[in-house]
Amino acid sequence: MAVIVQKYGGTSLGSLERIQNVAAKIALHKQQGHDIVVIVSAMAGDTDKLIQLANKLSQQPCPREYDALIATGEQVSTALLAIALIAKHCPACSLYGQQTGIHTDSQHSNARILDIDTNRITAELQQGKVVIVAGFQGVDDFGNITTLGRGGSDTTAVALAITLAAQECQIYTDVDGVYTADPHVILAARLIPVISFNEMLEMAYLGAKVLQVNAVELASKYNIPIRVLSSFHQSNGTLVTEEVHMLHKPAVTGITFNTTTALITIAGLANSPGIAGYIFGKMFDYNITIDLISQSTLGNNNISLTFSVDRKNFIAAWNLVVAIAQELTIASISNNPNVAKLAIVGAGLKTEASIASTMFQVLGQAGIDIYMISSSEISIAVIIDEANLEAGANALHQAFGLTAQA
Amino acid sequence: MAVIVQKYGGTSLGSLERIQNVAAKIALHKQQGHDIVVIVSAMAGDTDKLIQLANKLSQQPCPREYDALIATGEQVSTALLAIALIAKHCPACSLYGQQTGIHTDSQHSNARILDIDTNRITAELQQGKVVIVAGFQGVDDFGNITTLGRGGSDTTAVALAITLAAQECQIYTDVDGVYTADPHVILAARLIPVISFNEMLEMAYLGAKVLQVNAVELASKYNIPIRVLSSFHQSNGTLVTEEVHMLHKPAVTGITFNTTTALITIAGLANSPGIAGYIFGKMFDYNITIDLISQSTLGNNNISLTFSVDRKNFIAAWNLVVAIAQELTIASISNNPNVAKLAIVGAGLKTEASIASTMFQVLGQAGIDIYMISSSEISIAVIIDEANLEAGANALHQAFGLTAQA
Repeated sequence: MAVIVQKYGGTSLGSLERIQNVAAKIALHKQQGHDIVVIVSAMAGDTDKLIQLANKLSQQPCPREYDALIATGEQVSTALLAIALIAKHCPACSLYGQQTGIHTDSQHSNARILDIDTNRITAELQQGKVVIVAGFQGVDDFGNITTLGRGGSDTTAVALAITLAAQECQIYTDVDGVYTADPHVILAARLIPVISFNEMLEMAYLGAKVLQVNAVELASKYNIPIRVLSSFHQSNGTLVTEEVHMLHKPAVTGITFNTTTALITIAGLANSPGIAGYIFGKMFDYNITIDLISQSTLGNNNISLTFSVDRKNFIAAWNLVVAIAQELTIASISNNPNVAKLAIVGAGLKTEASIASTMFQVLGQAGIDIYMISSSEISIAVIIDEANLEAGANALHQAFGLTAQA
Repeated sequence: MAVIVQKYGGTSLGSLERIQNVAAKIALHKQQGHDIVVIVSAMAGDTDKLIQLANKLSQQPCPREYDALIATGEQVSTALLAIALIAKHCPACSLYGQQTGIHTDSQHSNARILDIDTNRITAELQQGKVVIVAGFQGVDDFGNITTLGRGGSDTTAVALAITLAAQECQIYTDVDGVYTADPHVILAARLIPVISFNEMLEMAYLGAKVLQVNAVELASKYNIPIRVLSSFHQSNGTLVTEEVHMLHKPAVTGITFNTTTALITIAGLANSPGIAGYIFGKMFDYNITIDLISQSTLGNNNISLTFSVDRKNFIAAWNLVVAIAQELTIASISNNPNVAKLAIVGAGLKTEASIASTMFQVLGQAGIDIYMISSSEISIAVIIDEANLEAGANALHQAFGLTAQA
């Protein structure tokens, strides 16, 4: 019998009542005759509480111990869900750590799954049990607990779906699926019934939080379809799959944005070979990831560099730039810590050249300045003032026909 | 180098500040050149919180899942203590579950340690690390997490001390050691500097909470000395050891009591062979443990049976007795759910016959009725009204010379 893999996030398990609801849902699927492997996150808030404890004891908690600590969150939710299922007379078994057979490298807090020994999971399934696996974690060569990084439970689910050759990997979450834009901001946003891996990847890269990038990459590589569903309502959700064959597929599939970007400009910098490499090398030394970079020539062998960083790194990046300005010949430095990234995503961008110009026209008509532009085969992203984000996103959503017709 | 095993209870780890204090204490011992293995309980209150969650989901949580759930409490405290030690530049490593090498049977929530594979512990010690082991738990043949029952961390500590041939097993707790009586009730109680395993066992059986019975039995069997110490103050605590050689050892070492006893009497029962076995067999069927039993003959082939049970089983036991009374010929049944057990313990009881009569005289002079008496080689326990407990305990403490001379 084909296995169905289901993953439930922290919000879906955020209270005992919600755990009971999830258990009822799983028991129903089990009654329908499916073999079910469930991957769970920690109850909402639990991981953050553990992280706070660790940070109060140490500014840089030992990574091995940090992982051992925060992995307990999933251990608690797996056991509670198993208890709830068994109380509903649905045989179940929680697995975590060594028991899951999920073998990772030793890169604590950001480990990669190397392989999965599914013997234990298969044995429990054969006994008719729902198998509940602690997401987000694995065990390295030395038997140490490792974690896969934030949102790693999605990756656990996809990796297990691949290894078990599951029929489908269902990701249950607190939204109904993947939307044309964040429905909290764009009220007219619509559910996307089917989306390709590539489009989903771009959406995730550019800020959509519904699925983790690593999980989508993995699903894409092994061509395992993911279905994103609500754990609160009955719905078909969104199917993320290899290629989408639709008669009238819109050129733009969705709009995505984030408000976690900050901008820094170094103007009037005397150009010399490797000068950009020198500046960004310094950033790299301090673990500051640069998102977008644009360089323009000002004449007189002077250049201007503008780049964006994640806001959490803004202060550190700015301090570095201040130090660099004292060292090199620079006319001026400036920053804007309150910018947003706004992007359109769609497989149609490959073929329809007019989309980019439409995007810039629409934003221009809305009176929105564009600071930077970046594009991939299937996406175009711009950096604008955060204050303009909602208006810009709404204008694009409307212009690209994503808003439902009345 | 000889290993020192230290166990810290939940109160000693009850806050981040206390964890820091324990870490400082351990780091100091480590600096003094000892190899240290630390066993920890869950932070005070954590295990109870987890138990409440389980009980809200199920009236009888699945034992395997229940153990997996509550074992996380120790996993959290081991990791936090390791983080605190490493932050103090003291190399440390937390071990739990499979990593500890503690192999138990599959009796969930009451598992027994079968053997301990100390390879991992020894390897970490050889790297100069303090090894922090999650107490109270082990792993069975199938890789399932098991727990040893309440207070099982003491047993983990003693078992590890035995297997590692430790120099001493130190149990750090929230009191300064073992007292002649509970110092919360008997203000004149004094610390006992040295006590024998047998005396400590009797004290623990009869209600002293400072050490677990199983842990003392194990230490006695393998002759591993236990030192009970305060984790808050500097003190020598109490050494629990094989035999105590003291010039003027008092006949009575300590006084112990509990207020968790209830009494039931079946009077005017027609005697017949096996009648007591029939009644107590029924109790056994319902998992009700009988503590003391006394039988007296009333004449006319009638007998009276009085027995004590733990108060948590009182309602169930009384309901059974009511049912039995309808079935057999019985003159009357009665109960007293508010009695206490008061005992004196001392190796001197073996040789000094006058101690028993002194005990009864002292209680008689204090106007205290005795309902039942039981005695072992080194203890005498009586059941009295709970209301008389404090007066009785104080009178005995004074009469047997345990109260400090002014």
